[in-house]
Amino acid sequence: MKLETTQSGFAVSICGRRVLTHSAAAPCFFVGQGNDGITMHRGHFEIEDRLAERCPLAHAEIDGETIVLAAAKGHPPRLGVTLEGNALVLRALDPSVNRFWLRLVADRDENVWGGGEQFSYFDLRGRRFPLWSSEPGVGRDKTTEITFKADAAGQAGGDYYHTYYPQPTYVSSARYALHVGTFAFSAFDFRDNSFHEIEVWAVPERIELFAAPSFVELVEILSSRFGRQPPLPEWIYNGAIIGLKDGANSFNRLTKIREEGVKVAGLWCEDWVGIRPTAFGARLFWDWQANEMRYPGLRQHIAELNSEGIHFLGYVNPYLCEDGVLFKEAEAADYFVKDASGRIALIDFGEFLCGIVDFTNPDAAAWFSEEIIGARMLDYGLSGWMADFGEYLPVDVRLANGTDARLAHNHWPTLWAEVNAKAVASRGRTGEAVFFMRAGFTGIQKSCPLLWAGDQSVDFSRHDGLVTVICAALSSGLLGNSFHHSDIGGYTSLFGNVRTPELLMRWAEMAAFTPVMRSHEGNRPHDNLQIDGDPAVLSHFARMTAIYVHLAPYLRSLSLEATRRGLPVQRPLFLHHEEDRRTYGVQDCYLYGRDVLVAPVWQASQDERKLYLPAGADWIHVWTGQSFAGGQEISIEAPLGRPAVFYRADTEFETLFVGLRGV
Amino acid sequence: MKLETTQSGFAVSICGRRVLTHSAAAPCFFVGQGNDGITMHRGHFEIEDRLAERCPLAHAEIDGETIVLAAAKGHPPRLGVTLEGNALVLRALDPSVNRFWLRLVADRDENVWGGGEQFSYFDLRGRRFPLWSSEPGVGRDKTTEITFKADAAGQAGGDYYHTYYPQPTYVSSARYALHVGTFAFSAFDFRDNSFHEIEVWAVPERIELFAAPSFVELVEILSSRFGRQPPLPEWIYNGAIIGLKDGANSFNRLTKIREEGVKVAGLWCEDWVGIRPTAFGARLFWDWQANEMRYPGLRQHIAELNSEGIHFLGYVNPYLCEDGVLFKEAEAADYFVKDASGRIALIDFGEFLCGIVDFTNPDAAAWFSEEIIGARMLDYGLSGWMADFGEYLPVDVRLANGTDARLAHNHWPTLWAEVNAKAVASRGRTGEAVFFMRAGFTGIQKSCPLLWAGDQSVDFSRHDGLVTVICAALSSGLLGNSFHHSDIGGYTSLFGNVRTPELLMRWAEMAAFTPVMRSHEGNRPHDNLQIDGDPAVLSHFARMTAIYVHLAPYLRSLSLEATRRGLPVQRPLFLHHEEDRRTYGVQDCYLYGRDVLVAPVWQASQDERKLYLPAGADWIHVWTGQSFAGGQEISIEAPLGRPAVFYRADTEFETLFVGLRGV
Repeated sequence: MKLETTQSGFAVSICGRRVLTHSAAAPCFFVGQGNDGITMHRGHFEIEDRLAERCPLAHAEIDGETIVLAAAKGHPPRLGVTLEGNALVLRALDPSVNRFWLRLVADRDENVWGGGEQFSYFDLRGRRFPLWSSEPGVGRDKTTEITFKADAAGQAGGDYYHTYYPQPTYVSSARYALHVGTFAFSAFDFRDNSFHEIEVWAVPERIELFAAPSFVELVEILSSRFGRQPPLPEWIYNGAIIGLKDGANSFNRLTKIREEGVKVAGLWCEDWVGIRPTAFGARLFWDWQANEMRYPGLRQHIAELNSEGIHFLGYVNPYLCEDGVLFKEAEAADYFVKDASGRIALIDFGEFLCGIVDFTNPDAAAWFSEEIIGARMLDYGLSGWMADFGEYLPVDVRLANGTDARLAHNHWPTLWAEVNAKAVASRGRTGEAVFFMRAGFTGIQKSCPLLWAGDQSVDFSRHDGLVTVICAALSSGLLGNSFHHSDIGGYTSLFGNVRTPELLMRWAEMAAFTPVMRSHEGNRPHDNLQIDGDPAVLSHFARMTAIYVHLAPYLRSLSLEATRRGLPVQRPLFLHHEEDRRTYGVQDCYLYGRDVLVAPVWQASQDERKLYLPAGADWIHVWTGQSFAGGQEISIEAPLGRPAVFYRADTEFETLFVGLRGV
Repeated sequence: MKLETTQSGFAVSICGRRVLTHSAAAPCFFVGQGNDGITMHRGHFEIEDRLAERCPLAHAEIDGETIVLAAAKGHPPRLGVTLEGNALVLRALDPSVNRFWLRLVADRDENVWGGGEQFSYFDLRGRRFPLWSSEPGVGRDKTTEITFKADAAGQAGGDYYHTYYPQPTYVSSARYALHVGTFAFSAFDFRDNSFHEIEVWAVPERIELFAAPSFVELVEILSSRFGRQPPLPEWIYNGAIIGLKDGANSFNRLTKIREEGVKVAGLWCEDWVGIRPTAFGARLFWDWQANEMRYPGLRQHIAELNSEGIHFLGYVNPYLCEDGVLFKEAEAADYFVKDASGRIALIDFGEFLCGIVDFTNPDAAAWFSEEIIGARMLDYGLSGWMADFGEYLPVDVRLANGTDARLAHNHWPTLWAEVNAKAVASRGRTGEAVFFMRAGFTGIQKSCPLLWAGDQSVDFSRHDGLVTVICAALSSGLLGNSFHHSDIGGYTSLFGNVRTPELLMRWAEMAAFTPVMRSHEGNRPHDNLQIDGDPAVLSHFARMTAIYVHLAPYLRSLSLEATRRGLPVQRPLFLHHEEDRRTYGVQDCYLYGRDVLVAPVWQASQDERKLYLPAGADWIHVWTGQSFAGGQEISIEAPLGRPAVFYRADTEFETLFVGLRGV
């Protein structure tokens, strides 16, 4: 990174790319003051700012690698910026400052990706993205009936930028990346043609810049910065993880499913803790231990499954229900987050209240790791679990270590991931036991071995359906999250919106070309089609698991590549085709590793799929062997059972891919 | 108004009420820079600001009555404020400034009213109100199905603050009023407990302050500041204005309506110019002259009506359709607003395009007054008309006098009113011919003799139904608009929402206690019930016109009072009961003059009405003669035909009001 003075001010470049230009007439740093209003309703946040001041820092004095900024010459300095390595280290020189803005040089035709796990838009250019961990919303599109109903019912509709996992990091097509070192609320504004604007509700500690000659190298650098995941566990390659929450009957159903030829790696029963009947339907009992009433002899059942090479997975989240055993224990030890009056902060999850274990208290975090995840889950025989939630920390609570909850909120998912990772490590099972999370923020990469895309609607909708999972995998993948997967068939069934066989099958077809295949019964199992609810769906699903298993050698190589180099399994087309700008905006196709291109059918009633084949390679259609030159848009037949998948003509795995035709 | 220096800065008071307090730590003036983005879609505007700077002016230097403000001591002065009479005269001392904010002292329990004609909230406290003339929206409540559908169909749903007639003026319960002298976009923010914040996208010329010992005197002062209307024309008292747009058949229907006992003052045919069939339904032909095809022998018909004491009203708006005769004339004379490329700016009104006559060109304005309204309307025999629209001026057009369209937009309704008023004056018919408008802004009062509440939905909805008309009358009435009325039965029928007999009757019951009773067939006459479409509705309507006529002596006195003192006919309860704070928030009842209290039933299926009777008077229920002491909440029977109406026990009009029982 290079700081140089210019005629009118200064400029900062990284590897020859100018990222900051300052002049008195057009400053790039701004500071100010505001009062935020942040209110939470069931994981959805209303966030508003009452801005009192926004001061362009027009006057800069440079001393070596340090820039001291003020509103004008002779005015008190308000911000200090020091270049240290690849970072701008920031110091507020005025204690009243609680708002910060930075404008970066932008080109009109520049693309920008990242922002954490984004569900609606992969290329962030042209829009503003608030970065605050929250529920993503149901529908996420104000022009759809479902979004309207969810909004009317509980402000739960969401919008394009809502995500469980935001991260103030972006990758620019100008071959550089930027990361903001903050947990405060921030927003990336890419609406302007000539600059990108970063807004932070605090002065961030540092802003890191990364540059590389190629996108691949840039992604490698980011992944080593944020931490890499262990390789996928070997048992995952055995097939799909079957999600059932049918009590003891889950085992019977699994047997039948296997008899129909489904290859199974694991059985996932989120109801292993028992259930709680509510008006919304059957909810789980949030007291994290095996429920012998619902699963008699579970420990024995798990042992039997294991002997057949099938692993058992459960469910946990960072809350404890008021009427559970563990709540009393945590209460006695004073492990809960407090409200303003010093009492335990109880969160309403709909007909039941929960306490939040305070992960800023090392004893509380250690207790959750050891006593709950270690003793009651891993030692009991679980090989994995959904580590749910993480995005619900209210901002009006008191934390053990004194951190302002507004600064802890975005940090919470990472703290939650660490609690899980420590438990796994304590049993020496890192890389073997696997948990998956939806919530995230900077640092989640180091602790969470597998992302899951959260709760999509059970449909083909543009902003909450199947296609959003691709965008989620690609955006998070660029920031060092190599392993991503989703609920096959989606999760959220509301207002009469239910799964169709077509949706379930299209989703399974896509999942066969992702790191992990996992089914989910959804929020309303009995109203929705299940993989074992229709013979055609089940045999289709069985074949997709066979395809997944057939590809194991290739996936294993991608898993190792991810661990060694930090490259995601699912990659945007441009990652390996950066000379071809036509690939930069693609968010409904992805590379499955370098050699396989997957173009899921993400709309209903389609027998064909249009897609653009990246230039610089020839592409072989897996089902027909037909060869297509890259650099053109094509339309390919993609009936159910024959997803639009291609491999590079020059792949080392040709024999394996040719073999797919026989599966 | 008094400027005094304080220990830490300065303070401005009016009649002993401190409205501004400044200190370096808490300045009250702010300036800055921003780039606005304003786009219009059929009269609905998307307005966003890209703020670059907001600078608190912490340093003040006082010289006599002038305050010079800067960011800090020794910094260049950016704003000059001079107290002149009751105004703060503002001067930008820094040409880069295009944003202005002012914080006024507020008390926690203070109420604030005004903001022009507001449809959702009479007391503005607790919310922010952008002030920009626009369509109000259909539904205006994001939690309703109709709003959602209107938004999805054409971003037409609107929100609580959208109005045809905003005005940057408010009245505070602290017995003072404030007016911002600007046509720029502005916003009043009353969300904070300790201050009110005014935002203007320009440095306003002046901010005027008014104070008085009583609300009545304050309203008198405001009305003389903004201009008063002439008294209602005598012919109005003859009964209702019947809105029909049925071509020649309108006259036959009017005859039948009169035969059923309806008292009629006028016949209003907006289709007098002919119609244009569109997918939306029959629209009017926007070429402002009598259409002999649709109304054969119209001039003669009008003469006959006049001989029976019935007046004829028509319709006009500031646009001319591309395929009309007048368009050619205006085009030849170069009277149209231009687009950026210098061509005639054509606005799409749905299947037809129109030019906007440029009222900043005195010749064009004079032409519209004389050739259209004068020659083709008044001289033809019209006694009144709906002067529709005014809120559609796009911001990307070029105007004859060089004004930035962003500054002309809010001014347009007033320019439009002046064009109409001049025409009426040119024929010496001021106070006799009457036009009514929905769009407005500061100054409309002087030219427009009668407001009309625009296009409500044909329902009882909270934010777009019958009740919103009361809020509209009360808010605009405080700012010098003495005469207000609405479409009986509402106007907008979309998405299967149609008039019920109950709605039509409840609306008529309310209208009988307003300055003008006028029916409207609505946007879809054939799908909706009309006053002559149901015998029960028609006889009920007839009785309401009889009540209206019976009250004429009282209404006439209110009309004169309006002209002499500027008091509105429809008044908030607190206007005459300012000691009773419980009246301050009431927006679903109103005083009809000082002596009559009207509590319309504004929800469906209600036979009773709850209301609060102001303290300081006894109230007599008009239908039973039952007397109630003020200062209590009561519930009164209010079946159809017996609206909840009371009069003051000490009224001079007792005989008249007692007589209502016999009507």
